[in-house]
Amino acid sequence: MKIVVAIDSFKGSASSRELNEEVKKAIVSVLPDAEVTTFEIADGGEGTISAIKAGLGGVFVPVSTVDLMGNPITANYLITSNIAIIEVAEVVGIDKITPSKETFQQASTYGLASLFKDAMEKGVKEIILTLGGTGTSDGGIGLLEGLGGDIDHLPSLNKVKITALADVNNVYAGPEGYARVFGKQKGGTPDLINKIDEQAQDIVEKVRSKYDIDLQKIPGTGASGGLGGAVVLLGGTIESGFYKIAHLLNIESQIKTCDLIITGEGRMDHQTSNGKVPFGMAMMAKKHKIPIIAFCGAIGDDLGIIEELLLASYSIQKETLPLNEAMKKEKTLSNINRLTKNVIRTRFLS
Amino acid sequence: MKIVVAIDSFKGSASSRELNEEVKKAIVSVLPDAEVTTFEIADGGEGTISAIKAGLGGVFVPVSTVDLMGNPITANYLITSNIAIIEVAEVVGIDKITPSKETFQQASTYGLASLFKDAMEKGVKEIILTLGGTGTSDGGIGLLEGLGGDIDHLPSLNKVKITALADVNNVYAGPEGYARVFGKQKGGTPDLINKIDEQAQDIVEKVRSKYDIDLQKIPGTGASGGLGGAVVLLGGTIESGFYKIAHLLNIESQIKTCDLIITGEGRMDHQTSNGKVPFGMAMMAKKHKIPIIAFCGAIGDDLGIIEELLLASYSIQKETLPLNEAMKKEKTLSNINRLTKNVIRTRFLS
Repeated sequence: MKIVVAIDSFKGSASSRELNEEVKKAIVSVLPDAEVTTFEIADGGEGTISAIKAGLGGVFVPVSTVDLMGNPITANYLITSNIAIIEVAEVVGIDKITPSKETFQQASTYGLASLFKDAMEKGVKEIILTLGGTGTSDGGIGLLEGLGGDIDHLPSLNKVKITALADVNNVYAGPEGYARVFGKQKGGTPDLINKIDEQAQDIVEKVRSKYDIDLQKIPGTGASGGLGGAVVLLGGTIESGFYKIAHLLNIESQIKTCDLIITGEGRMDHQTSNGKVPFGMAMMAKKHKIPIIAFCGAIGDDLGIIEELLLASYSIQKETLPLNEAMKKEKTLSNINRLTKNVIRTRFLS
Repeated sequence: MKIVVAIDSFKGSASSRELNEEVKKAIVSVLPDAEVTTFEIADGGEGTISAIKAGLGGVFVPVSTVDLMGNPITANYLITSNIAIIEVAEVVGIDKITPSKETFQQASTYGLASLFKDAMEKGVKEIILTLGGTGTSDGGIGLLEGLGGDIDHLPSLNKVKITALADVNNVYAGPEGYARVFGKQKGGTPDLINKIDEQAQDIVEKVRSKYDIDLQKIPGTGASGGLGGAVVLLGGTIESGFYKIAHLLNIESQIKTCDLIITGEGRMDHQTSNGKVPFGMAMMAKKHKIPIIAFCGAIGDDLGIIEELLLASYSIQKETLPLNEAMKKEKTLSNINRLTKNVIRTRFLS
């Protein structure tokens, strides 16, 4: 009996690793001979670096640079197997500022360039950026400038592959662009948002005519205040976080031969099928015809396509509790332990 | 594939029949060829008459009598297969009064006698009483008097078997007697409770010396304000509601050959092993080595012995909701439908 466990973090409650380990413990308490393989996993957002480090090892490298407002900081990125993984919020995270008109206009991705340069000096072949949680709206121009270029003179990364992991599909400008969609939460007023969006539209036009690239047709170019667009201009790609991580961790080769996959996330709902962990796992499971079960903190009413991909899905809740009680880590772990035992017994015991 | 479904009502939310039917519907949606047998079931309390009528048929017989305070009422009892089933709360229910010092002292089981006499005239061989929910504390003396006797001259039931289904194990007098345990909720003051308990102790003494029966050693004689004791004095027995109903409905012969049993109750906790429906079903399942799974509205932290008897137990909750939302019938039925599909898929699909 071989069982693969890869559960995303229950945000605000328990980490991927904690959930996986609790489920593994419960499985072997019912099936002592089961071979249980766990994968710390994420979808490109929170937990991504931790998942990659858990799977591939690596070391954190400190770099002196400046944050999004130009203040000196030391930021860490991960190097593993000739790959650098940079969590951009380490340098340009919105948690470093109080959003205001000033931060909206001035916050820059410039400081990220120091991490790029450090990684290139160390000879990495690929730089992976985990987008999300940024306080910037500079369209990624700061990064281009930090690398010694601008829109008219794109810097070269010397054949280093660059990959951005985005959890939103926004484009660069316009109604679905970074200014109009995320500007308000980053401190923008309506006037300033209009102004920044007009600048973004100018860049889109220039890029279209000069490089024959349409930032409006590539989902994710509007992620992280347009940083996704800059990645594209650097010759990089924007990918689904889950698939990239699953590929790095070689999950697919492990699930091919297993008898059951257990996945999950904090709340499974209609958004899950937009590339979240359970959806990605379920697609891989389907490809290899492996039964897959999801354990979640909560399950919404309309799950969309994933409902058809999963053998079953369960909420870990065993009674009605206030949300803050239910989300306590201790409760979450004891509930998922109990649920796991019951599901394993239901499936495998006579 | 044969599956037996026997779920107790989720009190305040959905009836045994509604839950069974929803589960059956969900099972056949996953396994169209499954043979699903449902048993409306109860533990002797609420839902008992409905369960017996659903299983055995029968007709309700109206009888003119008086309620616990002597007011004229028409009360119904069920006749089926030469058995009369009397829900005593129909005549002496606490819902018919506002508990007070007066009701505590005056409420009487006298009116029940008319139903006994009517049933005996109709030739039944057994009278089953479902105790619980009564407003009386008369030690069952009213019933004895209504049948033409008293403690010194016990009335005869002409070989009619009498069985009381009790959901409490209290004895007749003393600290675990009906006055001290239930007197307060029935309107008794401390002084009156002492007085009523002294009368109960006198009866215990008299019965012990005159009939060699010790009401203090028979669990349930203190049920329904001592009505359980009167049943014993009439030559009857006090039994577990679940087992009596299961016997009447012939459930055991049905489960012997099935592949899975599904049971459940509103809240499963440490009290469940005191003869509640899931415990009774689980004991029968164990005897015949049939796997049994429980579906519940809520599952407590400490289930006691039933945890070892069940293959698995699941809460129907799929997210955290306020209790009043979670208990809505529509929500309960849609949740149990969803859970059933997932459990059946987990167990039977590859």
